[in-house]
Amino acid sequence: MISRKMEGLVKGSSVIRAMFEEGKQMAAKYGAENVFDFSLGNPNVPAPKEVNEAIIDIVNNTDSVKLHGYMSNAGHDEVRDIIAGSLNSKYGTHYDKSNIIMTVGAAGGLNVALKAILNLGDEVIAFAPYFGEYNNYVSNFDGEMVVITPDINTFQPNLTEFEQKITNKTACVIVNSPNNPTGVIYSKETLEKMGEILEAKQKEFGRTIYLITDEPYRELAYDGAVVPWVPDHYRNTIVGYSYSKSLSLPGERIGYLVIPSEADDFEDLVSAAGVATRILGFVNAPSIMQLVIGKCVDAATDISYYDRNRNTLYDGLTKLGFKCQKPEGAFYLFMKSPVEDEKEFVNIAKKYNLLLVPGSTFACPGFVRIAYCVSYETVVNSLPKFAELARELGL
Amino acid sequence: MISRKMEGLVKGSSVIRAMFEEGKQMAAKYGAENVFDFSLGNPNVPAPKEVNEAIIDIVNNTDSVKLHGYMSNAGHDEVRDIIAGSLNSKYGTHYDKSNIIMTVGAAGGLNVALKAILNLGDEVIAFAPYFGEYNNYVSNFDGEMVVITPDINTFQPNLTEFEQKITNKTACVIVNSPNNPTGVIYSKETLEKMGEILEAKQKEFGRTIYLITDEPYRELAYDGAVVPWVPDHYRNTIVGYSYSKSLSLPGERIGYLVIPSEADDFEDLVSAAGVATRILGFVNAPSIMQLVIGKCVDAATDISYYDRNRNTLYDGLTKLGFKCQKPEGAFYLFMKSPVEDEKEFVNIAKKYNLLLVPGSTFACPGFVRIAYCVSYETVVNSLPKFAELARELGL
Repeated sequence: MISRKMEGLVKGSSVIRAMFEEGKQMAAKYGAENVFDFSLGNPNVPAPKEVNEAIIDIVNNTDSVKLHGYMSNAGHDEVRDIIAGSLNSKYGTHYDKSNIIMTVGAAGGLNVALKAILNLGDEVIAFAPYFGEYNNYVSNFDGEMVVITPDINTFQPNLTEFEQKITNKTACVIVNSPNNPTGVIYSKETLEKMGEILEAKQKEFGRTIYLITDEPYRELAYDGAVVPWVPDHYRNTIVGYSYSKSLSLPGERIGYLVIPSEADDFEDLVSAAGVATRILGFVNAPSIMQLVIGKCVDAATDISYYDRNRNTLYDGLTKLGFKCQKPEGAFYLFMKSPVEDEKEFVNIAKKYNLLLVPGSTFACPGFVRIAYCVSYETVVNSLPKFAELARELGL
Repeated sequence: MISRKMEGLVKGSSVIRAMFEEGKQMAAKYGAENVFDFSLGNPNVPAPKEVNEAIIDIVNNTDSVKLHGYMSNAGHDEVRDIIAGSLNSKYGTHYDKSNIIMTVGAAGGLNVALKAILNLGDEVIAFAPYFGEYNNYVSNFDGEMVVITPDINTFQPNLTEFEQKITNKTACVIVNSPNNPTGVIYSKETLEKMGEILEAKQKEFGRTIYLITDEPYRELAYDGAVVPWVPDHYRNTIVGYSYSKSLSLPGERIGYLVIPSEADDFEDLVSAAGVATRILGFVNAPSIMQLVIGKCVDAATDISYYDRNRNTLYDGLTKLGFKCQKPEGAFYLFMKSPVEDEKEFVNIAKKYNLLLVPGSTFACPGFVRIAYCVSYETVVNSLPKFAELARELGL
């Protein structure tokens, strides 16, 4: 007697999570060093040393009730001010704590934002390829997903189709850059054009359309690539951030939402996000990790580690004849499946203990995602396996 | 353009949370020592020293990826086994990790459980007085709340009305003992009878009815009172637990669900709870706090502190002529309002800097809740203010 909505989900479950469990089982069977698990975005780089230093400092020097007790649903005031200040110095913005809501990671933040704005039957637009969990987040609040087909040459959003698919039921749009699964950074030009289209459509339909930007990979950009600050290009933007990747803290569930003061119905939106945080059962982001962020706001993970993986993997795979999108950010590589049905390809790869995620999980069949947030040894040792795979497929 | 469902909530917001914010403002204005804020269940007793010792030990001795990384959505395997073992030794049960799902507090756990089982229009029964947030949790998943009127003599559930109000749409029942806001412990006889009624109704309607027991106060029982283990009295019980109160960690958001193997559709239910944890955006309970619980599973807060507050407050208030339900557990005292409209009484009390919560928040008008998880000084110094209040009201 579980919920009917859940029945399908339990059967399908998350392909990525199922692979994570399968990877653990394979590691137990074959030895961890012989399994090349590229399935999950679980950073292999340790958290910067400032994180653990901050934890110890906080535990030793903070009153227990302050440290472990309740605070406002939006989070510790001083931490929110620190985050606002950090954004201001990076992006020339003018935020303060009233613009920041601490969240249980970006996943928690996206659920809070969608809860705050969606009505039954509202449409939410996403650009393929996109993180498949958005489907569930939107469905949680009875929204309808509208998918824009991918531009498989650039993996920039297809703005022509976007413009056509906005209707008077469009409540929001979700973007994610640097992108999971492609590693592509949405360009300033793309975001400018997107903002213009949204402004025009807001006028046309006489309603607000929020742009939710999911940015857990914002700090992971290579070769000096710049990740544009999305609210610069559209007023009604809500930023969802997470420290899962930038500080290697995915299990700790800590992130924030930015709601700029210029956004329509700013005060209601902030209140709704606070209430949503409470009633969805988060109540608040974990207190100790909030305080840690207050001390580590400008700490950074060692992205040279991912960069080396990126180059090694990209060079290795392209030499073997695989066709890959070179990632500009994040820690995923999107590769064209040499077999038409990429799920079949994923199964063939599994014979070589290579765990990849099918692109259909990201509404982009015909491709696979390779998460290279793994050890360098895993990358290096996987290449002979990819070579065998290439041979089997006659590349 | 916020969600219509949220508009009402933002306006109403949580009376309790609004008071929390108001209390902070009053403390800033009058000085914290002159405001008697009995509004929020935010424990004043520090976390047991084992908690901070465990944090430091874990930070110093755990690999960063294990410590801060993703794990299964249900939580760290070994922590779930430790919790199962602790429950087994306390209650003679036979749980293992498969029965335990780590959650973001009890609020997170209840949302996960309700997401897992509710369909549109399903009925959920609660016994007044009850924690008003249940209304929102149930509404999150399109359930309909069915309220059983309180027995204001004993504050045990009214089982006659309960039996009458179960229908073929009843999907679950929520109980909470020791109870917020009354401090009453539901007796073994009550739970036995409740279990019998539910078994009979399951047969009558040919459906499963889950009993969700919300137990953040399970460890807070006074005068040697025993809190019965609810699954002993009904097979289809789901236990929601939180360390917020028992270890004074409300801001850390750590708790668990117990799903006994005897429950109907056990495997589907466990899978659904895991998926719900993921897609609601929790993903997993905060990793570091899970590991802390693994080391502190049998640590305990100093309940003698609350017990002293309880006796001092109960004795003081009854001497002043207020009519109170003597709490057997938790850290709330439920007091009859001397004014018919208890909201009016709450406003009068505010003149004396006494912050109380109206019973209508708990579907039980005519009473007020006093949260005595405050400093002993607050309790002692509040009594002269209550005396002035009693005088004004001619008690």
